[in-house]
Order: sequence, then structure tokens, then C-alpha cells
Amino acid sequence: MKFKLSDILELPDRYRRNLINSMHGFKSVSLIGTADVEGNTNLAIFSQIIHIGANPPLVGILVRPDSVDRHTLQNIRATGWFSINHIQREFLEAAHQTSARYPQNISEFDATGLTPEYIDDIPAPCVLESQVKYLLEKLDETLLINGTVLVTAKVKMLQVPDEMLQTDGFIDLHQAGTLTSAGLDAYYSVNPIARFSYAKPDQPLLPV
Amino acid sequence: MKFKLSDILELPDRYRRNLINSMHGFKSVSLIGTADVEGNTNLAIFSQIIHIGANPPLVGILVRPDSVDRHTLQNIRATGWFSINHIQREFLEAAHQTSARYPQNISEFDATGLTPEYIDDIPAPCVLESQVKYLLEKLDETLLINGTVLVTAKVKMLQVPDEMLQTDGFIDLHQAGTLTSAGLDAYYSVNPIARFSYAKPDQPLLPV
Repeated sequence: MKFKLSDILELPDRYRRNLINSMHGFKSVSLIGTADVEGNTNLAIFSQIIHIGANPPLVGILVRPDSVDRHTLQNIRATGWFSINHIQREFLEAAHQTSARYPQNISEFDATGLTPEYIDDIPAPCVLESQVKYLLEKLDETLLINGTVLVTAKVKMLQVPDEMLQTDGFIDLHQAGTLTSAGLDAYYSVNPIARFSYAKPDQPLLPV
Repeated sequence: MKFKLSDILELPDRYRRNLINSMHGFKSVSLIGTADVEGNTNLAIFSQIIHIGANPPLVGILVRPDSVDRHTLQNIRATGWFSINHIQREFLEAAHQTSARYPQNISEFDATGLTPEYIDDIPAPCVLESQVKYLLEKLDETLLINGTVLVTAKVKMLQVPDEMLQTDGFIDLHQAGTLTSAGLDAYYSVNPIARFSYAKPDQPLLPV
């Protein structure tokens, strides 16, 4: 099937949302934990998380101000802090359930049974059940063309189980049980195929 | 293992690159096809592809101007067009090999054996071997804090095999054989777990 832009614009809303959201491939779906200035917690599932740099370690998240993510953005603006927590099969249903539009006075931690975990006195809660988690401090906000906000942040703490950390710094996300997502509502586990050597012209690839 | 920012900054470069690049989870790795104004083609593997909006369909890619991706950015600036093409197991080695630093006069299509495919007279080549592919026209560029450039673009054409398109617009990426990546050099296939219903407070999740 070939869709031109004019075809895409004429699709029913729900069909277009599913199509365009699944078009990109698999995403780094995670739970973002925040709190307001009084310590009331919020937890939201996000799949728009991007690597901006390694030195210093910079991450971006994309937030639609009109979406259920708005409490997350309010809290990040108020405190400057948020956590990103990988999702495993054991608590996938709870993770997806955080996308429901709970009223502001209900914490998604309480509603879903996930456990807030505070590390190093940083005011944003992590998810105790997550194997891989990191804490970030907001640096900047950039408004994109359609009103979406790109929040850039610096990694202040990263926690990974020892046995999932390889000798060259690579985190074995398959062993950690980290899941991936596609579209708005589909979740997947992964099978490792290979790690390849740094590619050079006129040299065959080698497994790492 | 717990890494504070000060620990991360003191790590050896290669260890830090592996750690921070794998920290985000799985990514929508794809091949980006471009051409210069004379029609000389370029193909580069990218994992920084983000959904910005569905209506109109907007996509962002993140480019480091000092990296091997610079030919891609030059071509997008020169012609305004690029293609994004999913990666399947059958040509994974060729896809990874496009990350080698070929001289500007060598096309990664020629070097790796992948086949350029032109659709609707748009000047950016797609990858014939890819099952899911889309063509984009650049709208805007945003410079981020560390010199990285976010290119935002509008989808002008999307092509998906009929049998991989579900009745609600969701693309069955598992059936399409689309792969995902982690870190700088690890690739994975996926196993579907579930699609869930739109989450609502006080309602159990249902499979779609």
C-alpha cells in the first residue's frame, strides 16, 4: 500500500494515528517519574526518548503539552528533575496503565502498584521494579513546529545491575528484560542477533 | 552498579559511549537515503528518529555535524529530501557497513550492494530491499545545546506491504521483519507480547 501525504491527511484520525506512530519502528519506551514541589508523585509511559550526547551525557524527551504527559512537564518545570525507568514484562500492564488520564491528585504509583524509589535525595522518584534507571536534571526546552516541547537534560545518576554491565560499558538490555514498543499500544521483547565491529571501508564486519 | 555524573565523566571514552548509548533502550534504527544535487547517492544508518506528530505527519532526525552522517545533512540541506527505510535481517550486515567512513565520491549503495529505488520522481533514493519506507521533505532545523542538529520533516509518501497493514492502520513490524538496535552496534529481532486497549482509570486493560 502506498500512501501519499494527501491520502494520509484524509484518513480517519485513529487510523492515521496508528499508521504514523508505527511507521517509525521500535521505540525506547520507559516510565518517567516526577514529583511536584510538595512531593506528590507522577508516573507516565513515554516512548519519545532520544540520545543527544555521551560526553556530557545528554538526553531529550518530547512532550505534547496537550496530552496526558502534561503533569510530567509541569513537574519537570517546577523541580527541574525526572527519572527514566526501563519496562520489563513483569510490570508491563501497570506501565501501560499509567497512560490513563488520572486526575492530578491521584499518583500513578498508587493507581498501578508500582513502587517509588528515591536515590541520593533527588526529588524525582525512580521505579523500584525497573532494572535500568537514570535520573536527569533539566537543562533546556525547545518548542518545535507543532507545539511539541523537546526537553533536554543531563544525566546525574545511572543505575544498572552489575551482571548486566559488559566489560566495554555496554548494558545487556536483553538480559535486563527491557521491552520495546511500536505505535501507541504494542509491546515486544527482543532476541539478540549480533554486535558488530566498528565498520571501516573495505573491511569485513566482525562480531564484537 | 551506580554511576554518578562525576563517575560518568571520568570513564574512558569508549566505555562511556557504550554505556550512555545503551542506557536509552531500544531504538528505531533505519537507513536514511539522500542524493546531492547531481544525483550522487548516500546511504547512512541512523537510530535517532523521532515521532513529532501524526496530523500532519512530522518526523525528526538528530544529526551530529561532526560525524559520518554529515553527507546526509549536506544532501538534505541541498535538495530538501530524504528517505527512511527499515532494516531486516537479510541485509543487516550491509546496513551496519554504511556506518563506515567512505569518501564522498563513493556511494554506500555501491559499496554495500543495496539497491536505490526512486518513487514518484522524488530525488532521494529509497532502499528497494526495505519492506517499510517513507519519503520526507525538510521543514526546519533546530540547533541543540551540544551542536547536534534536529531536522524536522513532513512525510510525503509512506509505503508498506499490504499484508502487513492491519485494519486499524497499525503496521505489523514483526511480520515486516523490522529490526531494532541498542547502543552503537547491537541489533535485535522482536517477539510481540500484546497490544493493549486505550488505558482508562478504573478499567482493566484489554488486548486489542
